[in-house]
Amino acid sequence: MKCTSSEAFSAQEVRDAYVRIKPYIYRTPLEESLYLSEDGRRYFFKLECAQTVKSFKLRGALSKMTTLTEEESRRGVATISSGNHGASVSYAAQLLGIENAVVIVPETTPKAKVDKIRFYGAQALLLGKNYDEAHRLGMAYIEEHGMTYIDAYYDDPKIYGGQGTIALEILEQNPQIDTIVVPIGGGGLSTGIAVYAKSVRPDIRIVGVQTEACPAMIRAFADDVFYEEYPVTGDTVCDALVGGVGKLAFDILRDYIDDIIEVKEASIRKAVKYMIKEEKFIVEGASAATVAAVMDNRGRVGGQNVALVMSGGNIDGELMVQLLNA
Amino acid sequence: MKCTSSEAFSAQEVRDAYVRIKPYIYRTPLEESLYLSEDGRRYFFKLECAQTVKSFKLRGALSKMTTLTEEESRRGVATISSGNHGASVSYAAQLLGIENAVVIVPETTPKAKVDKIRFYGAQALLLGKNYDEAHRLGMAYIEEHGMTYIDAYYDDPKIYGGQGTIALEILEQNPQIDTIVVPIGGGGLSTGIAVYAKSVRPDIRIVGVQTEACPAMIRAFADDVFYEEYPVTGDTVCDALVGGVGKLAFDILRDYIDDIIEVKEASIRKAVKYMIKEEKFIVEGASAATVAAVMDNRGRVGGQNVALVMSGGNIDGELMVQLLNA
Repeated sequence: MKCTSSEAFSAQEVRDAYVRIKPYIYRTPLEESLYLSEDGRRYFFKLECAQTVKSFKLRGALSKMTTLTEEESRRGVATISSGNHGASVSYAAQLLGIENAVVIVPETTPKAKVDKIRFYGAQALLLGKNYDEAHRLGMAYIEEHGMTYIDAYYDDPKIYGGQGTIALEILEQNPQIDTIVVPIGGGGLSTGIAVYAKSVRPDIRIVGVQTEACPAMIRAFADDVFYEEYPVTGDTVCDALVGGVGKLAFDILRDYIDDIIEVKEASIRKAVKYMIKEEKFIVEGASAATVAAVMDNRGRVGGQNVALVMSGGNIDGELMVQLLNA
Repeated sequence: MKCTSSEAFSAQEVRDAYVRIKPYIYRTPLEESLYLSEDGRRYFFKLECAQTVKSFKLRGALSKMTTLTEEESRRGVATISSGNHGASVSYAAQLLGIENAVVIVPETTPKAKVDKIRFYGAQALLLGKNYDEAHRLGMAYIEEHGMTYIDAYYDDPKIYGGQGTIALEILEQNPQIDTIVVPIGGGGLSTGIAVYAKSVRPDIRIVGVQTEACPAMIRAFADDVFYEEYPVTGDTVCDALVGGVGKLAFDILRDYIDDIIEVKEASIRKAVKYMIKEEKFIVEGASAATVAAVMDNRGRVGGQNVALVMSGGNIDGELMVQLLNA
């Protein structure tokens, strides 16, 4: 594992991000699991699911948006996302007093998601019949209006830096943590965490988790191919873990991560139920994937003091009830 | 409404408590409701359900236990409670390095509750066939061992002071709050909040909420009788709101509270479901009672910027699923 910094992205980016975003974020708790700890292994939940907007994505959005010039802020910000990133950009704009904030979503986006974007303050702009069309039309709109595009996970080191602040907090909250388990979607969160954690604690173990429904990063590294897009196989409860990998993540994560575990959807469903009913934390599928990895494969996850990153708490209400009844 | 301090308990007690407990507690978020706000009324949840131990009781326990002398700490602390207060005393002892901590519970206490007390670090001592017997035997045990008894809500101003720190945070987090809605059980939380809030903002409105299953404080004030015990009528999902009233609360709360609303159990059940499924916060019945008051009686609750105190998040898993399916 490489423990020095990449040129494209370094731990200093995370430290700088933390100074900028600290006044705006909730320092989420790191709490020991009531029931997972055993056999000399202790497990701690980093409860980023309790962040405002219920997602770690707020950190990245704030990290980027706190670096804008006055002129850029005046021209405004925009992104294309109907999920946690869109809601995060919306709320970050409100926090920072950026009046012109636009979140572009496909015309088919459910009303509940559109309402949530608007609730947090931004304008929701419905463009295109599907995500690809929304993206194409959206990028044209953003360019035309001279706005700053807020990247979700592709290659903006400011975004990666914001996500990495979670590792900074974990290691402050419990210096004994020797293993961090983190869900991998595009790779912004895992890369931010891995690069920061390895730079201050070269012996720390970083374990990624992906769903069997979309193991894009695992395949990208195995095939040595940058899968900018990746198909979904079968049903998934992990909306946040679906799609291709980020460019910056693809370029550097391999050198910082110790293992990536692929978990079954059935295990993730069980883990969601466990987290809500027994531990009493509402988490989305992506977060529960880390718990599923521990439940199915305690030895491979390893560690004596293990932090599991609960990355988000936005789970559909009907799905929650369905999983609790399963 | 009286806005000066009582001799027995004053806002200064709350300020002093906050200085002592701040290093140990989470400053829980104050977040606007996604769906309750309308007609110029905005509602904010004070998410004390996300406090460690998932209860505001940690604040009171810490407030008291941070005032012990070295000798008292060495002799140890004890309380009699199978609920949030017992778990809070257990965890507070761990945080403060008080090695001799005993939580006394009746022999009939469910294993899950006993396990939770032990999880947080204290010794759980099973004494007596019911709560009355546990109390009698427990007080004898505590006296015999020269331990400090940690009051749950009866008359210790240090406990009331700790609970009142919630109001201090609310008013710092959003100075526009003009109304605080708080569940009333024994009255420690409501009295702490009301005395502090009225002292710094004499025009603030404090609204208490009780369940129809045990409207002890409402009856105590109406009858002008100190109901140290009070019966429960019918089923309740509000374990935390059952029982008699505290002496200090009975003596002074009347002068500080603007209204106490009695809500129906059916409404509280609906409100629990709403909070978990729609707002996505796991709350116990006592917390949801404040939401039920708003849903049933928005006008009587009043206010333009209303804080609802989510006092705890310890709800039985089976009950949660049952309420979600209702």
